[in-house]
Amino acid sequence: MSTAPVKMASPKYLTGDKAAIEAFIDQFDTFLFDCDGVLWSGDHVFEGVPETIGLLRARGKRTVFVTNNSTKSRDEYVKKLTALGIPSDVDDVFGSAYSSAVYISRILQLPADKRKVFVIGEAGVEKELASEGVAVVGGTDERFRRDITPADFAGIADGSLLDPEVGVVLCGLDFHINYLKLAYGLHYLKRGAVFLATNTDSTLPLHHDLFLGAGSVMVPLANASGQKPLELGKPSQAMMDAIEGKFHMDRSRTCMIGDRLNTDIKFGVDGKLGGTLHVETGVDKKDAWQKPDAIAVPSFYVDKLSDLRHEA
Amino acid sequence: MSTAPVKMASPKYLTGDKAAIEAFIDQFDTFLFDCDGVLWSGDHVFEGVPETIGLLRARGKRTVFVTNNSTKSRDEYVKKLTALGIPSDVDDVFGSAYSSAVYISRILQLPADKRKVFVIGEAGVEKELASEGVAVVGGTDERFRRDITPADFAGIADGSLLDPEVGVVLCGLDFHINYLKLAYGLHYLKRGAVFLATNTDSTLPLHHDLFLGAGSVMVPLANASGQKPLELGKPSQAMMDAIEGKFHMDRSRTCMIGDRLNTDIKFGVDGKLGGTLHVETGVDKKDAWQKPDAIAVPSFYVDKLSDLRHEA
Repeated sequence: MSTAPVKMASPKYLTGDKAAIEAFIDQFDTFLFDCDGVLWSGDHVFEGVPETIGLLRARGKRTVFVTNNSTKSRDEYVKKLTALGIPSDVDDVFGSAYSSAVYISRILQLPADKRKVFVIGEAGVEKELASEGVAVVGGTDERFRRDITPADFAGIADGSLLDPEVGVVLCGLDFHINYLKLAYGLHYLKRGAVFLATNTDSTLPLHHDLFLGAGSVMVPLANASGQKPLELGKPSQAMMDAIEGKFHMDRSRTCMIGDRLNTDIKFGVDGKLGGTLHVETGVDKKDAWQKPDAIAVPSFYVDKLSDLRHEA
Repeated sequence: MSTAPVKMASPKYLTGDKAAIEAFIDQFDTFLFDCDGVLWSGDHVFEGVPETIGLLRARGKRTVFVTNNSTKSRDEYVKKLTALGIPSDVDDVFGSAYSSAVYISRILQLPADKRKVFVIGEAGVEKELASEGVAVVGGTDERFRRDITPADFAGIADGSLLDPEVGVVLCGLDFHINYLKLAYGLHYLKRGAVFLATNTDSTLPLHHDLFLGAGSVMVPLANASGQKPLELGKPSQAMMDAIEGKFHMDRSRTCMIGDRLNTDIKFGVDGKLGGTLHVETGVDKKDAWQKPDAIAVPSFYVDKLSDLRHEA
């Protein structure tokens, strides 16, 4: 073991420090925002957040909303942002469903006869795949929303029920998960399909509590197949590369803002962004990065996002 | 790293060796049998198996069928054994559902107001719990076989939909697994329920193929809660202790017969039984225990169970 003293993390605290806030804002051109726990909790927007986004935009900053929630498409996110007082368009939003669709359509080199995607997930994933021209099997199709039967077991095992053109299994958060979908997913994987996950968050914040996240819906397939999916949401750098490919931002002048260390802050640190800002309104509090074994440490922190909205 | 030579495993091969088979049978009073992959595959009994069991019984041996399959109760196992030509009674069967019921009713010291069990599983688990007088919530109740609604999310989060008397979450194989049941299970765990699993087999052999096993149905709860269940099926020694408590067998004169190293053979080795016999008719073949890092190595092996039925 090393006997060197542990280097303590020392993110700069911005709340109430006007000069530091000014310097912080001046340091960046682009701000990437996590949404849940930063802008809102569920359908409740935090006080002062719309004005804070407005202030940054008024100063010429680009604001991009980066979310691991794959149940909504970008269009639906735009509606939610706008309804909550943050008028936005589709190019302001980068979600894990969109990131997955771009990865499948533009990066994966699938053989011509293996281009269908078996989806475990909700409409958001389907819409983004459709927008990239990718054919979907499963997903919200009602034919997969039922109990498994003896005929299903037989037909999945002998392959007669499997679509031979499926080359990818993509898992996102699915509130309609069942044994039938998992059985199909497992057998496509066993036949060589590429295993992708929109994200692997184990939990989903809702009603000031935690429910099962996309990672907990995907994990039966990982457990039964012995395979791990390639993950396309935060903190995967596949997502950062896709964001850079779209926005051509200068990483040194880009800041990631989020509440979770293992997704948001790690995403920014691994992506070698100019900075990361931790807010205390979500899942992780500052004690999380104060631990010596913290998974990632932000460069700045505030109590809440609207603390950036000081009167200069 | 150690530089000592790797000690190679050397189980004794019995197939075709009459003298060795005689000595093997004489060495034991009790034989514990795994079922699937040893006696049968699905509903197809292997040739010569009923006669082999009959031969052992005729020589005064006790035969006990030890299964991790929790979807069937012991009564249903007796029906299946008898239908396949192995007449048996309920005391010949020891299943993980029964093992779980005995553990909950006789070993767990639950407070009087925390004695209900939230079940993720099929009728087999419910029947065994009922036979031990344990009250069940969930399980095959149709009210849990539906999509989750916004009211469910709210009522689970605030606790108004939770039964305050639930003190245990028990997970077995459930072909009707859904998000609603998992959400209930997660929130009972978050409120301090004891986390149990009938077994944690990741896969289920069926139609000469593998589907998702009980461990893959349980793993979303482990992933989302950060907790691991106490497992009551093979290779858990809680099950061996329960078997010993019931049959009072002499472990040194007991042999475990099975096809899987990580459940059956490990179960017998960890339980310090007099011997373990590996059959090649199921999931693991002999190359599995021939590897230097094999999880468990049997003391005997045969190509198939009926190889024990030689003419003396």
